[in-house]
Amino acid sequence: MRRVFVVGGGIIKFGKFPERGIRKMAEEVLFNLFKDAGAKPSDVEAAYVGSQNTACDDTLMMVGQIALEQAGIVGIPITNCTNACGSGSNAVHQAWLAIQSGLYDVTLALGIEKMSSPLLPQAMMAGRLGGGDSEIEGVFGLFAPGIFGMIAKRHMEEYGTTREQMAKVAVKNRFHASLNPTAQYQTPTTIEEVLSSRVVADPLTVLECSPISDGAAAVLLASEDAVKRFSGKPVEIIASVQVSGTYSFTDILNIDTTRRAAKKAYEMAGVGPEDIDLAEVHDCFSIAEIIHYEELGFCKKGEGGRFIDSGAPFLGGKKPVNTSGGLIAKGHPLGATGVAQIVEILYQLRGQAGKRQVPNARIGLTHNGGGFRKADTGIVCVHILKKV
Amino acid sequence: MRRVFVVGGGIIKFGKFPERGIRKMAEEVLFNLFKDAGAKPSDVEAAYVGSQNTACDDTLMMVGQIALEQAGIVGIPITNCTNACGSGSNAVHQAWLAIQSGLYDVTLALGIEKMSSPLLPQAMMAGRLGGGDSEIEGVFGLFAPGIFGMIAKRHMEEYGTTREQMAKVAVKNRFHASLNPTAQYQTPTTIEEVLSSRVVADPLTVLECSPISDGAAAVLLASEDAVKRFSGKPVEIIASVQVSGTYSFTDILNIDTTRRAAKKAYEMAGVGPEDIDLAEVHDCFSIAEIIHYEELGFCKKGEGGRFIDSGAPFLGGKKPVNTSGGLIAKGHPLGATGVAQIVEILYQLRGQAGKRQVPNARIGLTHNGGGFRKADTGIVCVHILKKV
Repeated sequence: MRRVFVVGGGIIKFGKFPERGIRKMAEEVLFNLFKDAGAKPSDVEAAYVGSQNTACDDTLMMVGQIALEQAGIVGIPITNCTNACGSGSNAVHQAWLAIQSGLYDVTLALGIEKMSSPLLPQAMMAGRLGGGDSEIEGVFGLFAPGIFGMIAKRHMEEYGTTREQMAKVAVKNRFHASLNPTAQYQTPTTIEEVLSSRVVADPLTVLECSPISDGAAAVLLASEDAVKRFSGKPVEIIASVQVSGTYSFTDILNIDTTRRAAKKAYEMAGVGPEDIDLAEVHDCFSIAEIIHYEELGFCKKGEGGRFIDSGAPFLGGKKPVNTSGGLIAKGHPLGATGVAQIVEILYQLRGQAGKRQVPNARIGLTHNGGGFRKADTGIVCVHILKKV
Repeated sequence: MRRVFVVGGGIIKFGKFPERGIRKMAEEVLFNLFKDAGAKPSDVEAAYVGSQNTACDDTLMMVGQIALEQAGIVGIPITNCTNACGSGSNAVHQAWLAIQSGLYDVTLALGIEKMSSPLLPQAMMAGRLGGGDSEIEGVFGLFAPGIFGMIAKRHMEEYGTTREQMAKVAVKNRFHASLNPTAQYQTPTTIEEVLSSRVVADPLTVLECSPISDGAAAVLLASEDAVKRFSGKPVEIIASVQVSGTYSFTDILNIDTTRRAAKKAYEMAGVGPEDIDLAEVHDCFSIAEIIHYEELGFCKKGEGGRFIDSGAPFLGGKKPVNTSGGLIAKGHPLGATGVAQIVEILYQLRGQAGKRQVPNARIGLTHNGGGFRKADTGIVCVHILKKV
């Protein structure tokens, strides 16, 4: 395998910006990317663009071509990856794989999503935002919040996880987001506020759910041969893994995709969960982050609640998780999420994360997934990045 | 570069089948694929699925995962490629690239589209079926038929191309389709019928336009190391090229994407247009096939009309084009089209094309594109396949 590096990352503030369309978002995020990487648009040899609903709701077919044209990136192979909430990391993995092919030395992954659309209620009705399958779960109205509500109840029953422990995930991520100028919700919250906010899917409250967001993030990847062309300080991708679900587990507390992707990623990187200094984890709901602690090997099965009680995943703890604010507080523009996670780890490993900097961060992990059905996830990607 | 082979191809009859959903189509096409390849679903190491509207209209997010699960293909990396009418060849190119990476030896490309949906009129209104951009061309109502209508008029004006020459494309492709049991329209037609049928976008009539279709096609690719695992007779992919538009041409008679993709493909394969024994070409409209003859180098610029008059692209001619029936007569289920082209060339080079067999076919080319805007195409892929 070739060594592959992230040489630049760009992000824009996530939020609901009715006045800001795909073109404007793309222009801003690509400007930030090329500035950060010390690169020109003409350096890009192939591009992968993660976007899910944008292709549907804005009727902007081939959103990648339209977005990249804003920076003059034309002519090259552009592949639009639609994989629900995992579209962004899918794009990063494919950009990495394209460099592995030996045909390309410099590839770009862009994640972009416009969710604050007039067509949003229609999309929600159709089940799209559930990452779901309208022919099976959808007919029962079983979209993402309902599924994770059931998981939360089962985790409480099985392992004694408390509502306070779940609320702590939201409190932690809101606090981290208060230190991140690109986060959607930058105001801290409290356990009491989380627990008394509106219930979305019993027991989960609105502050425990990732919001509707517009946003974009982009990374530039380079082979070992090409890395010196750019002034952007590189970080190495020591593992890039994509898996899909097997749908063979009927136990909703086992997120098998995360476990398999993490196992492969640790093997590829030659590190274990104990070596991870910080992680960006797919906290679409508070309970999701707790279960993923377990599946990523940060703690034993069933001990996710106790893991957050220990303080470990807080900034200042021994394994900070979602220093960006995560999906819950930074926002969750579907296709952008997986790319934004890489940008956060890049900035952290470079020591450029400002007030939310993790001291001496050396190895970071990203975990992004999408599409929940039959007690499994449609896609999970895990990346491990290392300071060089 | 590694040598890559197509070891199997599967297709199902294209048409409008309201009773047949994605799951049923996938089950049938994958059954046909694995039977043809002499392979098992568990042989597949990574998969790419081309689909455009299906992801939107059927609210089946992650259509690839749902489709492949019908054959028990789970757990592996599955990437859904949405690139308008070029989604299928995008999937084939990425499946080829994945083998180039050295990480995989056996990959699958599936193209699948369900267009006969109750939501179709809404999608058409939104401009999706135009492969377009609702923010620019869309606001003027300038979708695919209108664009190609303008191109037709300009080609007539500039080069003296006649309506009879255009109609001949439809006549030829309908005739070829009459020999193809999986084609949507298997009844031959005449120049008179084509010219007197309903006008869709002046001067193009309904028989010169590709129809609304449901359909699916799949291919199994293998590295040189893996090819011997399968009993399916292999055909080598000697070129696989994907490009996007540059949008720098304002002359609508120059389809720059096709020309650039073809040039690269000929270079990669070490052959020229004169070496191509047969081709599947993106005839979304009759005039499109005429222009692509020129851009692919089958004849000089402006001589596309005379090329069809010469009889060359007819079965029995010196360079048969669209022996499958092409988009116009075989049907055009967006994401399936680019994969179906590969299946046709595979069957032809193996000598399994039945009544439409091209004698002694040795080298075949496929050309598939999508998304027309600013007088250029969003994506074009060209593949060249060779008998082994």
